[in-house]
Amino acid sequence: MSRPIRIAVDAMGGDDAPGAIIAGALQAANDEIEPILVGRLGIDPKGLAHVVADQVIDMHEKPSKAVRAKSRSSLVVAHKLVVEGKADAVVSAGNTGAMLAAGLVVLRRLPGIKRPAIAVVVPSRHEPYVLIDSGANADARPRYLLQFAHMGAVFAEEILELKNPSVRLLSIGEESEKGNALVIASQKLLAASGLNFAGNAESRLLLEHPADVIVCDGFTGNVALKTIEGTASSMFMALRDAAEQSPLTKLGALLLRPALRSVRTQLDPDTYGGAYLLGLRGLSVIAHGNSGPSAIANAIRLAARGVEHHVVQRIGERMPSRVVASARPSNSTE
Amino acid sequence: MSRPIRIAVDAMGGDDAPGAIIAGALQAANDEIEPILVGRLGIDPKGLAHVVADQVIDMHEKPSKAVRAKSRSSLVVAHKLVVEGKADAVVSAGNTGAMLAAGLVVLRRLPGIKRPAIAVVVPSRHEPYVLIDSGANADARPRYLLQFAHMGAVFAEEILELKNPSVRLLSIGEESEKGNALVIASQKLLAASGLNFAGNAESRLLLEHPADVIVCDGFTGNVALKTIEGTASSMFMALRDAAEQSPLTKLGALLLRPALRSVRTQLDPDTYGGAYLLGLRGLSVIAHGNSGPSAIANAIRLAARGVEHHVVQRIGERMPSRVVASARPSNSTE
Repeated sequence: MSRPIRIAVDAMGGDDAPGAIIAGALQAANDEIEPILVGRLGIDPKGLAHVVADQVIDMHEKPSKAVRAKSRSSLVVAHKLVVEGKADAVVSAGNTGAMLAAGLVVLRRLPGIKRPAIAVVVPSRHEPYVLIDSGANADARPRYLLQFAHMGAVFAEEILELKNPSVRLLSIGEESEKGNALVIASQKLLAASGLNFAGNAESRLLLEHPADVIVCDGFTGNVALKTIEGTASSMFMALRDAAEQSPLTKLGALLLRPALRSVRTQLDPDTYGGAYLLGLRGLSVIAHGNSGPSAIANAIRLAARGVEHHVVQRIGERMPSRVVASARPSNSTE
Repeated sequence: MSRPIRIAVDAMGGDDAPGAIIAGALQAANDEIEPILVGRLGIDPKGLAHVVADQVIDMHEKPSKAVRAKSRSSLVVAHKLVVEGKADAVVSAGNTGAMLAAGLVVLRRLPGIKRPAIAVVVPSRHEPYVLIDSGANADARPRYLLQFAHMGAVFAEEILELKNPSVRLLSIGEESEKGNALVIASQKLLAASGLNFAGNAESRLLLEHPADVIVCDGFTGNVALKTIEGTASSMFMALRDAAEQSPLTKLGALLLRPALRSVRTQLDPDTYGGAYLLGLRGLSVIAHGNSGPSAIANAIRLAARGVEHHVVQRIGERMPSRVVASARPSNSTE
């Protein structure tokens, strides 16, 4: 690369902003990655580039209203840097709804894209895979799921470096007749999509690499991911309590601690630091609200990787020819 | 009770039928519970009552077709015993879809009930609670969720012996504006229902007793429950692998084994052996397909408990007066 990849980082978004965000940006900065901090005048950018934005959108504001009303907010200004060609991607740990709204209003959708969707990397016990949509669209239609599948496939090809990734629909049984109306109608579109579609996957296998790309509406995806997180967390708490039973179980827990920690790390959906918001004319990475410095650094690296692999362009190339055309078969349910 | 509670048990349904079913029925049989085995002539009923049914519905048959075509199947005959007053409830570990179909066709819905739903007891780290619907209705409407909430509340009152049980909707955030169209429309009905409605619950807390009754459509409920099962199972497998790292971690795993086992038992959704199919004119309990003798015995006891507590009558009393009326407010979305 001739010049570093420039990532606009919303310094004001997240539970520990701006401290954790600036520290994370500093960790990620190197010859290839140039973070640009966007935030209030008073913050200490620690030698990184700093673009001043004097408004902040907080977690409790109504997303689309806040984005329209606060054009000088760190979130909106960071997005504008991408539109103006001053940054290659944007990262924020702020209000997810506001990220989605800023993506739609400032970056705008790629031609042919019905709805942007959030793609996350799920670690699993085996290889990592992509789950899309993890929460952008609580209500979806078969045509949207078809586009999510294509965007997820581009992500798997470019970011996970998989060839001809397998795609499955998240459902309540592997049989094609099992599912809700959305899943059943989407199967037909996916089967005719040219993607490597392998049918339905059950949520029982979500940590066992059910496919390279798992497609679902954002409500189901969000419920499933939070159930994984919650189950893991409840189990660790229950285990900690159970280990208090006797001196021997306490000793066992002590000896097993490294193994427990490795399981937690191996299956932790936060390993990748962030999720891509795909389907926009620029790359947007959403970090967890509670991100610490390393999670922010990972999110910035994830954004840089997407820029390097031209994820936005690759999705754009795919949409008009393959997806927009195939998204309107004569027997579509929509 | 003057006479024992009679439970019609489908001896032919389940992975290990009829052996495991007969053994389980034998375990459950006592002065208060009289299992009636329904199945082929050749089975050995071990001294229990036996009603002969010479057909079997297998796991791969189309449910409603099979129920209509096979009127002499063990599943259909077991349901008929309830209708004819020869049994007080029915239990099967067979095809869940066929159970639902037989419930609708043979037992039939209670007056005013739109859709029967499956209620399961979820153990959680604290007190157990009810999740409804865990899979009967992949597509639901706000009015159905309102009825599920009432049925779940009766279940919590009668089977878990809770007074004025709290009810929450499973969603992707606790805030009332978070959710899909179904959840958002259902909130209004639940808020006006007279139930102890406490808003939305996130799936992150499903093992932390989010409420006494969690209400959702059957697709979401099934995805969530199978995600819990799968996450727990994947974590135990990952832990077993990680414990192989060194002699010390192996020793740790050995010492911690009783604690691990107690966590597994504590959080295992199979503890209760079965799920109620509610909303019918008779009580129907669905056991897991892979049920062994103890799970079958638990399912039979669960059915007996429902009979003893008049769950069907209690639901029937509640429906016409409260639910059918309140299910049609002038601002209903349906």
